[in-house]
Amino acid sequence: MATRRVGLWLIGAFGSIGSTVALGLASLKRGLASPVGMVTTLSEFQKLPLAHFEEIELGGHDLRPDDFTKILTDTHAAAGLYSLAQINACKEDLVSWQSNIRPGVLLPCEERIRTQGQDNWIQLVSSPLQAIQKIGEDLRDFKQKKQLDQIVVVNVSSTETQFPAQNCHARLADLNQALAKGEAVLPASSLYAYAALDAGFAYVNFTPSLGASIPALAELAEVRKTVHAGQDAKTGETLLKTVLAPMFAARHFKVLSWVGHNILGGGDGYVLDDPRNKQPKMQSKEHSVSSILGYKPQTHVSIEYIESMQNWKTAWDHIHFEGFLGTKMTMQFTWQGCDAMLAAPLVMDLARLSLYAQSKGEVGILKHLACFFKSPIGVTEHDFFQQFEMLKDHLGV
Amino acid sequence: MATRRVGLWLIGAFGSIGSTVALGLASLKRGLASPVGMVTTLSEFQKLPLAHFEEIELGGHDLRPDDFTKILTDTHAAAGLYSLAQINACKEDLVSWQSNIRPGVLLPCEERIRTQGQDNWIQLVSSPLQAIQKIGEDLRDFKQKKQLDQIVVVNVSSTETQFPAQNCHARLADLNQALAKGEAVLPASSLYAYAALDAGFAYVNFTPSLGASIPALAELAEVRKTVHAGQDAKTGETLLKTVLAPMFAARHFKVLSWVGHNILGGGDGYVLDDPRNKQPKMQSKEHSVSSILGYKPQTHVSIEYIESMQNWKTAWDHIHFEGFLGTKMTMQFTWQGCDAMLAAPLVMDLARLSLYAQSKGEVGILKHLACFFKSPIGVTEHDFFQQFEMLKDHLGV
Amino acid sequence: MATRRVGLWLIGAFGSIGSTVALGLASLKRGLASPVGMVTTLSEFQKLPLAHFEEIELGGHDLRPDDFTKILTDTHAAAGLYSLAQINACKEDLVSWQSNIRPGVLLPCEERIRTQGQDNWIQLVSSPLQAIQKIGEDLRDFKQKKQLDQIVVVNVSSTETQFPAQNCHARLADLNQALAKGEAVLPASSLYAYAALDAGFAYVNFTPSLGASIPALAELAEVRKTVHAGQDAKTGETLLKTVLAPMFAARHFKVLSWVGHNILGGGDGYVLDDPRNKQPKMQSKEHSVSSILGYKPQTHVSIEYIESMQNWKTAWDHIHFEGFLGTKMTMQFTWQGCDAMLAAPLVMDLARLSLYAQSKGEVGILKHLACFFKSPIGVTEHDFFQQFEMLKDHLGV
Amino acid sequence: MATRRVGLWLIGAFGSIGSTVALGLASLKRGLASPVGMVTTLSEFQKLPLAHFEEIELGGHDLRPDDFTKILTDTHAAAGLYSLAQINACKEDLVSWQSNIRPGVLLPCEERIRTQGQDNWIQLVSSPLQAIQKIGEDLRDFKQKKQLDQIVVVNVSSTETQFPAQNCHARLADLNQALAKGEAVLPASSLYAYAALDAGFAYVNFTPSLGASIPALAELAEVRKTVHAGQDAKTGETLLKTVLAPMFAARHFKVLSWVGHNILGGGDGYVLDDPRNKQPKMQSKEHSVSSILGYKPQTHVSIEYIESMQNWKTAWDHIHFEGFLGTKMTMQFTWQGCDAMLAAPLVMDLARLSLYAQSKGEVGILKHLACFFKSPIGVTEHDFFQQFEMLKDHLGV
Ligand SMILES: NC(=O)c1ccc[n+]([C@@H]2O[C@H](COP(=O)([O-])OP(=O)(O)OC[C@H]3O[C@@H](n4cnc5c(N)ncnc54)[C@H](O)[C@@H]3O)[C@@H](O)[C@H]2O)c1
Ligand SMILES: NC(=O)c1ccc[n+]([C@@H]2O[C@H](COP(=O)([O-])OP(=O)(O)OC[C@H]3O[C@@H](n4cnc5c(N)ncnc54)[C@H](O)[C@@H]3O)[C@@H](O)[C@H]2O)c1
Ligand SMILES: NC(=O)c1ccc[n+]([C@@H]2O[C@H](COP(=O)([O-])OP(=O)(O)OC[C@H]3O[C@@H](n4cnc5c(N)ncnc54)[C@H](O)[C@@H]3O)[C@@H](O)[C@H]2O)c1
Ligand SMILES: NC(=O)c1ccc[n+]([C@@H]2O[C@H](COP(=O)([O-])OP(=O)(O)OC[C@H]3O[C@@H](n4cnc5c(N)ncnc54)[C@H](O)[C@@H]3O)[C@@H](O)[C@H]2O)c1
Ligand code: NA
Ligand code: NA
Repeated sequence: MATRRVGLWLIGAFGSIGSTVALGLASLKRGLASPVGMVTTLSEFQKLPLAHFEEIELGGHDLRPDDFTKILTDTHAAAGLYSLAQINACKEDLVSWQSNIRPGVLLPCEERIRTQGQDNWIQLVSSPLQAIQKIGEDLRDFKQKKQLDQIVVVNVSSTETQFPAQNCHARLADLNQALAKGEAVLPASSLYAYAALDAGFAYVNFTPSLGASIPALAELAEVRKTVHAGQDAKTGETLLKTVLAPMFAARHFKVLSWVGHNILGGGDGYVLDDPRNKQPKMQSKEHSVSSILGYKPQTHVSIEYIESMQNWKTAWDHIHFEGFLGTKMTMQFTWQGCDAMLAAPLVMDLARLSLYAQSKGEVGILKHLACFFKSPIGVTEHDFFQQFEMLKDHLGV
Repeated sequence: MATRRVGLWLIGAFGSIGSTVALGLASLKRGLASPVGMVTTLSEFQKLPLAHFEEIELGGHDLRPDDFTKILTDTHAAAGLYSLAQINACKEDLVSWQSNIRPGVLLPCEERIRTQGQDNWIQLVSSPLQAIQKIGEDLRDFKQKKQLDQIVVVNVSSTETQFPAQNCHARLADLNQALAKGEAVLPASSLYAYAALDAGFAYVNFTPSLGASIPALAELAEVRKTVHAGQDAKTGETLLKTVLAPMFAARHFKVLSWVGHNILGGGDGYVLDDPRNKQPKMQSKEHSVSSILGYKPQTHVSIEYIESMQNWKTAWDHIHFEGFLGTKMTMQFTWQGCDAMLAAPLVMDLARLSLYAQSKGEVGILKHLACFFKSPIGVTEHDFFQQFEMLKDHLGV
Repeated sequence: MATRRVGLWLIGAFGSIGSTVALGLASLKRGLASPVGMVTTLSEFQKLPLAHFEEIELGGHDLRPDDFTKILTDTHAAAGLYSLAQINACKEDLVSWQSNIRPGVLLPCEERIRTQGQDNWIQLVSSPLQAIQKIGEDLRDFKQKKQLDQIVVVNVSSTETQFPAQNCHARLADLNQALAKGEAVLPASSLYAYAALDAGFAYVNFTPSLGASIPALAELAEVRKTVHAGQDAKTGETLLKTVLAPMFAARHFKVLSWVGHNILGGGDGYVLDDPRNKQPKMQSKEHSVSSILGYKPQTHVSIEYIESMQNWKTAWDHIHFEGFLGTKMTMQFTWQGCDAMLAAPLVMDLARLSLYAQSKGEVGILKHLACFFKSPIGVTEHDFFQQFEMLKDHLGV
Repeated sequence: MATRRVGLWLIGAFGSIGSTVALGLASLKRGLASPVGMVTTLSEFQKLPLAHFEEIELGGHDLRPDDFTKILTDTHAAAGLYSLAQINACKEDLVSWQSNIRPGVLLPCEERIRTQGQDNWIQLVSSPLQAIQKIGEDLRDFKQKKQLDQIVVVNVSSTETQFPAQNCHARLADLNQALAKGEAVLPASSLYAYAALDAGFAYVNFTPSLGASIPALAELAEVRKTVHAGQDAKTGETLLKTVLAPMFAARHFKVLSWVGHNILGGGDGYVLDDPRNKQPKMQSKEHSVSSILGYKPQTHVSIEYIESMQNWKTAWDHIHFEGFLGTKMTMQFTWQGCDAMLAAPLVMDLARLSLYAQSKGEVGILKHLACFFKSPIGVTEHDFFQQFEMLKDHLGV
């Protein structure tokens, strides 16, 4: 196994999550960090032959040219995250991986995202099909140059605006036909997903964007005998909802209302500040509670961009519930988390687990990864612990 | 099954929990309340032949003579709990059940509890053995007078001071010998437990007091072919700890410290204000987190009696944890619950489930009831959802 | 002074605040309640010859016919507020005052408010001028029938939608001309204010609606030698903002962001659930912090209607600030208040203080009442304690 | 004024506050930091001829030899405070000031403090008088070597255990007599205070230790015509209490209970973890609320050392109050502050203001500095804003 080489390709590689994965992976390889926050390093998962940190090569797309060392150092100065010593020690990898990052594709409509990027670094494409082709080339190039056995593509790019459903999403043949005609029937996230699956690579959608969450792309994965998982990683407030709601259910409390207010800064917060980009995230956050309870209490979720919060998010949840004899009671929580630090270890978990699944010959949606997502494709179970059991059962750990 | 009659005997019947059980049961019988907060009325438990509300007769011991209607009406006036209409509609049962309440036994040392009671209502006993005998008589009397098929005794009386371990606790023969000599080797809670088990009745310890949690009494239960469960019901802050700690474990976070501060009023709060009575409760609340995590973060628990809170408890928990790359994050919660309303439905659950177990021929500690307790006897699992699975598995639901 | 009789006329008399004022006043008269929450009963105000509770007669307008006893009893049943014994003891006044309530006026546009009322109880008017006239008649009628020396009209009706500024608002002559032409240049709240001031009565605007907050009506007050105050009472979250922001200023902290989320139920919450009705309230809540600090940190305020909260409001505020050497720190608070109970005593304070001002010959805007309002007309000071000093200085207490 | 030179002498110079003052002062001199958190840099104080940052020379005592640069760098690594760039830029001052730090004196009893220090660095003294003498020599030495016009001594050393009151504390003559006999009638903090005042220097007690808070030392200050202020700086939870309690009073709410729980790490937290050292701090925190309200609600304060919190403190306060018609409401807050960053700017404020007072010829207790302290000596006013007005009035700003 010493010679296995795998590629982790990040769409949005220069974002908060992307750069934290880069530093994290480089640190873990060197034994400079402990894998706190990674599920796959829990003792029960040790026996699985998952990719070792030193076997992983990093690459990716982004809309702007950037520099891992600079991004990390700037964030350290501004928000106190990361250690300068660690950044320095990992410089070799950071520099080397940076040279694997290729300009990304963006569709015309995404104003909010565009303001953060740099237009001239975008790959100019004249049609969706050409975009898919260019992305595919970048991926195959990476595989060949780095002599990789497997590649997993993880979407950690900015949340796109809601993309309207299309008739051609139902079947691969129809989708291909529409694409052949040059029709704008897919958002950028789905073009990346198409390219990854088409090339036979594993694909993970860490974001609430559409990605591979349409039947036509599920079909493509089956055809190409590859795997995919998504969507929208469950790292904070929604994780807690899916941990707490089962308790309210098991104790037969009647949840009357569940209000969740999220404030955050950073690039993700900035993009989500546009109502159109916020919408997919809101939808993804809304449904878990009622799904677990089996009825719909009044719910309200807000996400606000508060610049001073930088890379931090605070969520305040107010849960109003009825106990015995109509007595109303309240639970409130605040969650003060650093999103990139919550997300990065899960990106590595998802990469390792989907590569492993593919290597075992699994095909299609990886339903056993539901515990990682707010809106797990193909799975109706939202209870975190039930999902975690599904994961362990499937892996036999 | 129409003719089945069961008795629910409450030690501490006139307390907050006791009187709420009385009103609750009478209301449920009449269809005046919905069984919110009762686990055994969840749909998956419906198929079990558990005692119906109208089959249950209430009795109990208390240290003071009192009046259910008055207790409930006074609490309504002071704290806004219960509805006067419901109290009125249930008067018949409340009055009838009240006549089943017998004076209790108390050991000399319990000053804090004594100040709430009325000394002249205590049954004068000259020895522990005589106390056991008198309690036993009360129970058998109840059974005969009300023509009951089964009885379950539930301890919902004030938390006793810590009772020191005794050598004779190890074996029933030794315990009997010490008792025969008139030695004060058992606290009041254990005298009640002895009497209940000795008479072949089911016994549940809802409190952190010693009750049946010694090997000699477990032995007695086996000998008498009866069942018991305990100890210290898990209704609020500790419930949340055993719901949240598994998430921190599953996500491989490193919990650095877990601080929990509880403030409460009421009779329970008053008694717990004495450090000696508080000690068993503190112990019971302390160990769950480290047991679930598998390591010991710094923990701190406080319980303070704040008179103005009356029947309400507020817990504030501060959980400090480390995520990826050494990043420290924080979760805080506040829980604002009415303890009697949280407890009463579980008292009925435990009564129904232990009567059912006994009727099926089970004997000894009912380990499948662990999800109801902070310190489940004979069970090391503290994870609430694992415990809930144990319950459902055992019951085949 | 034994023979002094004053009238307190409430626009929105059957609302939460209105009915609480009715019960409160009747209880205070009878010595059945202590004046907790009333500023004018603090010891330093005792020496002022303010109206005694037994000198006050209650009347008002509302859009629906209703019954004080029923409103109060229903709220008791639903939300546990008030005591039935107190309601019973006050029945005489409640019934008598109820007969003083007259059907109100509403302008066509207010859909959200209309759904709560009963159209047939509205006084049909063919023009704004006729509305003013009818309101004036009701007020003068009340004065004469009850032989009152003074009347104060307090607007505690639902928050109206934002009313656009009009050129004719600048001068009374222009306003009168527009009204004479039948133009819809005033919202209902201003028609009531016009009528009250025109009749020489004191007027207080407890709400964020426009009321008397335009130059033309200030002019009218001067002409009629009467007094007025407003707008939008400061009872909860905003009160705290104007208490805490001065501390951040005095300690030279740099407030980076101040986020406030409010959730509430009740009639007020229901009406504010319409974005158009919420807008004036939001504006009123927004400006205090920056006004006190002297610079504009990022602020965000939300108000959400959560039905299960009934008469209660919970506010969560997150204040992010910078201390020495760029260190970011956080203060958060939650405020769990019952709005009607916070508001009713202030309604009585404002009534007493404006009647007193008028009786002393003051004329125009009562700027010394700024501490009671979120948007005090004519006053730029928002610091609560500075405002409180202004009050005490003006009154010489 | 260009030639004025003043000395700021810190007892406990190598502690969190001490080292933050060192870095802060050096940064301010260089224009590398903005004076956020300093009261005396608010615009209204600009016109006072207070000492400029570049006029201040730092010195002090501590129980252990240490190195400012190392302390600051280590804290940066462990807790993310300070910027490495700033530390580097200030190295010259840090190194130079460090050479001004002299070994301190400690009394035999202080075990908790001793464990943090290094015994061999303590100045060996055979009697209290000799301690006073040696401290005095260090101070005069500093004055002479650095050619200082004035010196202010600020106690920022660890909180001592409660020191019992002595008869000889009442009068200077008696105190001197007891000291002459070698009696242990003063804790270390008071020996430092004695030495400072005796040498005619200004003295500020930032801690809850006894310091100069006894009549005999007040007398000494009068005799030597110098000034002093104390005790226990008001930087967090207590500051908020004295900001919020006046609001509850002004609005005539009845506070039922006020519970405050503090958790903190760091050296201060470690020392306070000993109940004997905690006691003076608890006392200092307890009395403000009832003093402001004029009655005593139930109060509870706890301080717990939670190691993982490092230099941070979180306070959770639960305020239960009664509003109109007996309605109970709740305010809760959490305060997440970095104590050294809150304290350091106030140390500089107090130094500047007491030097200024002395230079203007003031003598004795500086009562106008009450707003800086939890237990202001000689002042009964605890209301923060009243105290702040006292400050501004006294200074004529
Ligand atoms: N951090 C979490 O806890 C969490 C949880 C769930 C989902 N997410 C999602 O993960 C995503 C990334 O979060 P982040 O905090 O790293 O955001 P970020 O704004 O810091 O980074 C996003 C990066 O994506 C790049 N990008 C945008 N559009 C692109 C495109 N079409 N092609 C290539 N690159 C593109 C941007 O240039 C940027 O560098 C977001 O969608 C977020 O909603 C995060
Ligand atoms: N409510 C909860 O959520 C919860 C959870 C776990 C445990 N508990 C425990 O349940 C118990 C009851 O709580 P509560 O709120 O009803 O308390 P309570 O003080 O209102 O009632 C206790 C009753 O027990 C009676 N009593 C005391 N000693 C007795 C004795 N020796 N014999 C007979 N009667 C005796 C008292 O007179 C009183 O009426 C407490 O021990 C409490 O710690 C409660
Ligand atoms: N409670 C507080 O703390 C607080 C603070 C500031 C402002 N306010 C404002 O006070 C007002 C009253 O609050 P509430 O909780 O009593 O509301 P509510 O909805 O319970 O009562 C409002 C009443 O006004 C009546 N009404 C509406 N339009 C009217 C009209 N044109 N003429 C006559 N009657 C009319 C309604 O029928 C209703 O009975 C609201 O505008 C609210 O925003 C309340
Ligand atoms: N930071 C705040 O917000 C705040 C507020 C009020 C009071 N205080 C008080 O300020 C003091 C200092 O706080 P800190 O966080 O810097 O504590 P710290 O533990 O970091 O530093 C205290 C320093 O004092 C030294 N010391 C102890 N006894 C001494 C003695 N007898 N002579 C000379 N040096 C001695 C110690 O060696 C240590 O270096 C504490 O008493 C604390 O309670 C702090
Ligand atoms: Na919102
Ligand atoms: Na405590």
